[in-house]
Amino acid sequence: MPHKIPNFNDIQDAHERIKNFIHKTPVLSSTSINDILNVELFFKCENFQKVGAFKFRGATNAVRLLNKKEAKRGVTTHSSGNHAAALSLAAKQLGIPAYIVMPNNAPEIKKKAVKGYGAKITFCEPTLQAREETLSIVQKETGATFVHPYNNFNVICGQGTAAIEFLHEVDDLDVIIAPVGGGGLMSGTVISSKAIKPNIKVYGAEPLNADDAYRSLKEGVMFPALPPNTIADGLLTSLGSLTFQILRENLDGIFTVKEESIKKAMRMIWERMKIIIEPSSAVPLAAIIENEELFKGKKVGLIVTGGNVDLDNLPF
Amino acid sequence: MPHKIPNFNDIQDAHERIKNFIHKTPVLSSTSINDILNVELFFKCENFQKVGAFKFRGATNAVRLLNKKEAKRGVTTHSSGNHAAALSLAAKQLGIPAYIVMPNNAPEIKKKAVKGYGAKITFCEPTLQAREETLSIVQKETGATFVHPYNNFNVICGQGTAAIEFLHEVDDLDVIIAPVGGGGLMSGTVISSKAIKPNIKVYGAEPLNADDAYRSLKEGVMFPALPPNTIADGLLTSLGSLTFQILRENLDGIFTVKEESIKKAMRMIWERMKIIIEPSSAVPLAAIIENEELFKGKKVGLIVTGGNVDLDNLPF
Repeated sequence: MPHKIPNFNDIQDAHERIKNFIHKTPVLSSTSINDILNVELFFKCENFQKVGAFKFRGATNAVRLLNKKEAKRGVTTHSSGNHAAALSLAAKQLGIPAYIVMPNNAPEIKKKAVKGYGAKITFCEPTLQAREETLSIVQKETGATFVHPYNNFNVICGQGTAAIEFLHEVDDLDVIIAPVGGGGLMSGTVISSKAIKPNIKVYGAEPLNADDAYRSLKEGVMFPALPPNTIADGLLTSLGSLTFQILRENLDGIFTVKEESIKKAMRMIWERMKIIIEPSSAVPLAAIIENEELFKGKKVGLIVTGGNVDLDNLPF
Repeated sequence: MPHKIPNFNDIQDAHERIKNFIHKTPVLSSTSINDILNVELFFKCENFQKVGAFKFRGATNAVRLLNKKEAKRGVTTHSSGNHAAALSLAAKQLGIPAYIVMPNNAPEIKKKAVKGYGAKITFCEPTLQAREETLSIVQKETGATFVHPYNNFNVICGQGTAAIEFLHEVDDLDVIIAPVGGGGLMSGTVISSKAIKPNIKVYGAEPLNADDAYRSLKEGVMFPALPPNTIADGLLTSLGSLTFQILRENLDGIFTVKEESIKKAMRMIWERMKIIIEPSSAVPLAAIIENEELFKGKKVGLIVTGGNVDLDNLPF
């Protein structure tokens, strides 16, 4: 069955739907980083979004589109990360239950956040199989609607709203770069950006050690995520059928970056901009660092995806 | 000789003088911190100021007031911290030399910053006596103007400009709290705040382990700084004759806070607000944490003084 692909109208509708529930996050710049890298960078700071990540946009759009009967039964997902917190808070704001399946090795800070938003957590073994099986049981028991973290029409529409705000605030960007994990943010970003500014270049950035999206788009077949070996812990998932199709048709390319560049970029943002970002959020700046000549003198927008880091376990 | 005390007009003049050279820093809030502490907090984020600290305001005001002859000879100071970086950049922007005396045990990151702004550094032993002696030699050799980090009319006027912006943006604050080290920021803040909003309460906050300002104001005599024993490394200095007089006449009081509260407050801001602040900047929030009942339901403005931390040496 072919997927229904979101278009820009769908994303604009999503923005109208969610804009009173989300933060319109700031766009920041750093003269010193610009000077170091010979480029004019703009950072769309979704680390300041509710729950500390862009995921709140998609989750809010998804829960606000449930009908009355669905809403009563609540929502469910499996996630060890920001999507779990985002869906929990979005559900809480609407006054409906959220059932989260989490691997039992998820970071304490994420468990605490999800609990704090009042979700019911079911722990499982840290394998994709266990997560999917446990989710299936939870779904049967509760009748909750599964909100996939990225391979979901409404979630993609929600994530695409960040680019609308971004290009509204800085309307002459030459390039936008976002990190690619499952491709939800990337899909929404490319649809919005190309609709608003057809000649803009939109690139993904992913760790070389988790370059499944790069290889999938290059070969035209979906590669699964490799065993995780990157500090960018938000980018371990592989593309879904829907995001694969959107990115294949629209994206201008994907930059793969080394771990040391990610660490360098993360530290540069912490030290120069005084904002807390998670490693995944540093991946687009790592792409600039590794390809300085390519972006020289250009106006480049980077989406900072989140700020949830374990302060007891920093990469530097 | 009695000191000439800055009045609000002097600070307004300073603001006009420096406003094109400084960042108008944002005022941020955090719903989750407000919920935890039952208070409505507003954070004036000078960690986003140039050189990562409010000190750039005072330094800029001081260098911009030099006459032609003085400017040519440059400026000098002794500082291991943010004032050194601030004076160096302010001098660089004006195209004049800066001579900085730094203790040889100053953190690498501060040495690097000052060098990066093109200042000439003279290292000395890490004692106040060695700093003053070395400064005296540098002054004799260069004829540079000494810009004291806080006990200086023009510096105080510059620091007072943050409160003007703050109360312009949030005009119904009940209380403002700033950290007290040497008292330059605190002096400028209390003069501006009381002039703009006479019924506002203005408090200082300092570590219990460096409570010389608290004791000095209480006893009416200037106590020297104790041997440093606090993570709030920006607040180790004692009041100067000028700041002592201003605070004694105007300040509503000083809260002293425990080290564990400072760490807790710092971590709360990092985790909830996703911004990087240095330990000294967490001291006002520590005062709220330790005195929750006192501030319940009030609108309280906190000045976040800086964001320069050594990422390799965090207190958590």
